[in-house]
Amino acid sequence: MSVSPGTTLGLIRERKPLVHQITNYVVMNETANATLALGALPVMAHAREEVEEMVGLAGALVLNIGTLSPHWVDAMVAAGRAANAAGTPVVLDPVGAGATRYRTDAAKRILVEVDVTVLRGNQGEVATLVGVAAEVRGVESIGAGDEPAELARTAGRTLGLVASVTGAVDHVSDGERVLAVGNGHELLASVTGTGCMSSALTGCFLAAKPEAPLEAAAEALAAFGVAGEDAARDAKGPGSFHVGLYDALAGLDPATLDARAKIS
Amino acid sequence: MSVSPGTTLGLIRERKPLVHQITNYVVMNETANATLALGALPVMAHAREEVEEMVGLAGALVLNIGTLSPHWVDAMVAAGRAANAAGTPVVLDPVGAGATRYRTDAAKRILVEVDVTVLRGNQGEVATLVGVAAEVRGVESIGAGDEPAELARTAGRTLGLVASVTGAVDHVSDGERVLAVGNGHELLASVTGTGCMSSALTGCFLAAKPEAPLEAAAEALAAFGVAGEDAARDAKGPGSFHVGLYDALAGLDPATLDARAKIS
Amino acid sequence: MSVSPGTTLGLIRERKPLVHQITNYVVMNETANATLALGALPVMAHAREEVEEMVGLAGALVLNIGTLSPHWVDAMVAAGRAANAAGTPVVLDPVGAGATRYRTDAAKRILVEVDVTVLRGNQGEVATLVGVAAEVRGVESIGAGDEPAELARTAGRTLGLVASVTGAVDHVSDGERVLAVGNGHELLASVTGTGCMSSALTGCFLAAKPEAPLEAAAEALAAFGVAGEDAARDAKGPGSFHVGLYDALAGLDPATLDARAKIS
Repeated sequence: MSVSPGTTLGLIRERKPLVHQITNYVVMNETANATLALGALPVMAHAREEVEEMVGLAGALVLNIGTLSPHWVDAMVAAGRAANAAGTPVVLDPVGAGATRYRTDAAKRILVEVDVTVLRGNQGEVATLVGVAAEVRGVESIGAGDEPAELARTAGRTLGLVASVTGAVDHVSDGERVLAVGNGHELLASVTGTGCMSSALTGCFLAAKPEAPLEAAAEALAAFGVAGEDAARDAKGPGSFHVGLYDALAGLDPATLDARAKIS
Repeated sequence: MSVSPGTTLGLIRERKPLVHQITNYVVMNETANATLALGALPVMAHAREEVEEMVGLAGALVLNIGTLSPHWVDAMVAAGRAANAAGTPVVLDPVGAGATRYRTDAAKRILVEVDVTVLRGNQGEVATLVGVAAEVRGVESIGAGDEPAELARTAGRTLGLVASVTGAVDHVSDGERVLAVGNGHELLASVTGTGCMSSALTGCFLAAKPEAPLEAAAEALAAFGVAGEDAARDAKGPGSFHVGLYDALAGLDPATLDARAKIS
Repeated sequence: MSVSPGTTLGLIRERKPLVHQITNYVVMNETANATLALGALPVMAHAREEVEEMVGLAGALVLNIGTLSPHWVDAMVAAGRAANAAGTPVVLDPVGAGATRYRTDAAKRILVEVDVTVLRGNQGEVATLVGVAAEVRGVESIGAGDEPAELARTAGRTLGLVASVTGAVDHVSDGERVLAVGNGHELLASVTGTGCMSSALTGCFLAAKPEAPLEAAAEALAAFGVAGEDAARDAKGPGSFHVGLYDALAGLDPATLDARAKIS
């Protein structure tokens, strides 16, 4: 499969896939708005009573453990299994894995019980899940032993999925190939939930390109990074950057996105 | 009763009614801020232990099932009954009814157990609740069999309430009369929770004009639509539109609102 | 201890303390972003299964009962006790105490079971907790019998903590000394959650200056008030003010903050 974020973005806007998100309280509004701004349709639903039916309507499922509790993790597993049965791609964002045992265990449980398509996390979170030494401070990655490219490859190979490790440069790997994504802006780190947004957008790209999760995951990060670059241009700080990010996502031009994407 | 959104807005700002909202996680901040920007006071409280006492302080109750779960639905019913006992108007926003059986059943249960004053939903949601064929995709209405004006009338008549059906043109009916509201802007569809905001504002208008729910519901949609028109003027996309919406709600001028409202 | 918000802000940005927040659904995104904008690291975690471990990583704990329910209050108490055992400062924001019995009882329970360092509330909430007549409408303070300076002193003395009573002028007291903070802007009352943000920032300042909670609490309010003054300068209403608040928090200059702070 060739890499073309512009082509996939065009498909997203044409098909408007429904992206079912079971995510944390902090960023629900933000990931829903990022999904809408990109051109897809978000739906947030977490009740055990409806997640299996809801995911049946969706083109992708995004699981995010940012403010987890036992009922929510159960619902994530149920939704994930239903997605697997239907062949619907699943993104897992293991927010804060490594910070507490509960988060690490919940992320591991989901990885065991659900066939996750793309694991999108920072270095500390992904390193924790492959058993590499890492330091996670709350939900921030402070450091990890491995080089990020190698970490992505190791995670892809050992976990049997596409690992999407974000940082100053992002690295996406299926365990063999590694794509590096060089788009983005440091202001993205000044707003909470931008990592969660990148996971939501990964779901959007997967819904439009389910046959190529490695490429879709890298394209999502490139598109989000380009939007970040656009939003940074007029930003006066994290507040105006945050607002500009939705404008920039909606304004992404499929025709020029491929030229601006730094995927190698 | 005559229709005058400007007069009712003046009353809201003078009396600052408390509007108790049991709503979804995605939009809580947004509906609270829209309520404040308009000039009323929001309070969000969902615990079974306090909803009856809290609604006793309120001028209106807004129930929204956007991210429902069993405990929350129980609390909504309890709050709704307490509101009924006190003669306090109740708004129901049946977010996603028709998308899953659980949502449809929850909305129907609330309609049976609570005397709802105004049902505010999109075409697909309202059609689902009156048994008309409809397509709901996640929380978006894709299509419904009836013409919206007729759907509003049917819903008003069969459910015994004021049906407020929003879309490109909104239709509000008590089962006999139908008011059409032509204000608004397409950017409203690019931000999550604008439907929920319109329900919250419906609660504000009902609190100030409880004796005329048909008129109050139409006035709320006109005021919100005019604010959307104002916010669209300088918007560069969904992010800046969203921000401008609160500025526009706070800036609504009671003296000119009646002239700008397109209610027929 | 001398009062110097600029010095403490410099320490916050240098050390980036983790501030663990168990707060309400309405403002989680907002308090996390305010914390980040100031220069500290937020983490939101509420599961009984992880709060004790998470607070062990944190420099301060902020408890906020804005959308409380039984599980959440239990988690707050558990986290608070763990914080106490570790000598980590605890902020309590008793949102809506006085509005319902459930809120008043929950706030009192936390005050009994946890050694709270700073109680940050409006006049009505704090008056309720010291048994002074007060009127709380939803989550807004309408009036309280005492003068605010005297209320802060009484609360500090009778509850054995630092009382931080916010209003047009804020008053912070340890039961003996009273610091008045004159910074701020009336637009702060037009956005939901600004009180909660001031509690979150109190946590940031306490994490950097745990040895002087009276001074740290006053410094936090001064810094937040100055940011409010800056944000108001270009605001067109509550929406743009809200956005500008994060820009202003990030733009706060430690070198000039002391001169701008009105602490007496």
